[in-house]
Amino acid sequence: MKFSTQFRPKKSFKVNDSDAGDKPLSSGDKAKDKLAVDALAQQIAELQNVFYAAHKRKLLLVLQGMDTSGKDGTVKDVLGRIDPLGIRSVAFKAPTTIEKEHDYLWRIHREMPAQGEIVIFNRSHYEDVLITRVHDWINDDEVQRRLAQIRDFERMLSETGTVVLKFFLHISKDQQKKRLEDRIADPDKHWKFDLQDIEERKSWDAYQSAYTTAINATDADHAPWFVIPADSKTHRNLVIASIVLEILEGMKLAYPPAKPELKDLKII
Amino acid sequence: MKFSTQFRPKKSFKVNDSDAGDKPLSSGDKAKDKLAVDALAQQIAELQNVFYAAHKRKLLLVLQGMDTSGKDGTVKDVLGRIDPLGIRSVAFKAPTTIEKEHDYLWRIHREMPAQGEIVIFNRSHYEDVLITRVHDWINDDEVQRRLAQIRDFERMLSETGTVVLKFFLHISKDQQKKRLEDRIADPDKHWKFDLQDIEERKSWDAYQSAYTTAINATDADHAPWFVIPADSKTHRNLVIASIVLEILEGMKLAYPPAKPELKDLKII
Repeated sequence: MKFSTQFRPKKSFKVNDSDAGDKPLSSGDKAKDKLAVDALAQQIAELQNVFYAAHKRKLLLVLQGMDTSGKDGTVKDVLGRIDPLGIRSVAFKAPTTIEKEHDYLWRIHREMPAQGEIVIFNRSHYEDVLITRVHDWINDDEVQRRLAQIRDFERMLSETGTVVLKFFLHISKDQQKKRLEDRIADPDKHWKFDLQDIEERKSWDAYQSAYTTAINATDADHAPWFVIPADSKTHRNLVIASIVLEILEGMKLAYPPAKPELKDLKII
Repeated sequence: MKFSTQFRPKKSFKVNDSDAGDKPLSSGDKAKDKLAVDALAQQIAELQNVFYAAHKRKLLLVLQGMDTSGKDGTVKDVLGRIDPLGIRSVAFKAPTTIEKEHDYLWRIHREMPAQGEIVIFNRSHYEDVLITRVHDWINDDEVQRRLAQIRDFERMLSETGTVVLKFFLHISKDQQKKRLEDRIADPDKHWKFDLQDIEERKSWDAYQSAYTTAINATDADHAPWFVIPADSKTHRNLVIASIVLEILEGMKLAYPPAKPELKDLKII
């Protein structure tokens, strides 16, 4: 089975039914898996050179997941070898005053990739049906309305040439506990620690349920979700890198054709 | 002498008096120099992690130089190891219709780095006193007016916390000829070849003169120019990486202080 099929959510997918500790692509040898990630990251970087040169497709990678699920780590380990010329990483935080005066897709649309560009969303418009729902800032009717709007928005993006890939980095509640404790133990990591993360953790079940709703409602062949078992960092990287590489390879990218008018050009 | 002093333009600097083939930092052994570049690029990437975490300073790297002078190559070789989270590369092309309806610094200001961010300008507002002057779209009075505006703009940036470093990648006319011929010889590189480059080459001397004027008028301790001998790619990388690393090290970057309130926090 292709990776890009294997990690798609099944019909009536439930976050809680999927195992965050799964390692389906692992060789069983962690050192070997790490080398595999490096090799995949290098191949992705090489294909991105062609992607940039071809200057046709637009690629959006959406990373979603609970705090500590490894969104930053994925950017660094899987996409960190890409030439900065052709990649852009956008972290969506709580909306600013000006952003709040617009519809919730306004700031998202502005950051979309241009031709030849790969853009990574570290959090995204999905927060507008996740944190907002969990805290009861919006009700279920509004969630349904937004999910329909997001489906329409992503279909338009796809129809106008953007490849949209959405990754749900799935960690278990125990694994999050461990990672939060690790951050507390290392003073150099305190800057990453927001007491708000503890508050959000209290709503763990509500988040799992909101993710389940969002993923089922917006998974589509033209804007697929991938459910990534993310308790192991190496394995998370391995799965995401395998999917991204497969999709880039499937694009049959090529350098633009040679220009015949250059053939007899003399530089003086 | 510090690198960041060594490569500053002398008083009444003239582009034509400086040797594009110079290799002052070379060990004399190209393979060794390449390894040195890789090591420096790695150190820059590591310091950028702290720069990002500290979330205080803003760093702007401006790359200017004739076609084929190695602006893209510098981004890849010197800055390509940096985590995409904290770096952004912006290529300024001919202004769009909307950009032309604003002042020439409008689109520049929008792309400035935020706290913790490193931004690379691949061409910049300097084109507005270079190509524009060479083609007589503006006269000398307007050049002088703009140079004063640029000085004011960059002083404001510096006073408000942006470190502005400007690199002039200096290649010789012969070296450009060689690189353009290399691009013609390799069909996979034709996409990089714009016949306009040949047109611009005809104005070589006018460009050298416009660069001389711009560099002299806008070199300042708070927004320094560095003149990089760029006929050798490896040496160009070595010099730029040495300067960038020295300046990052000089910032005495540190992770934000530990948060005492986390000390006795229990995760449940």
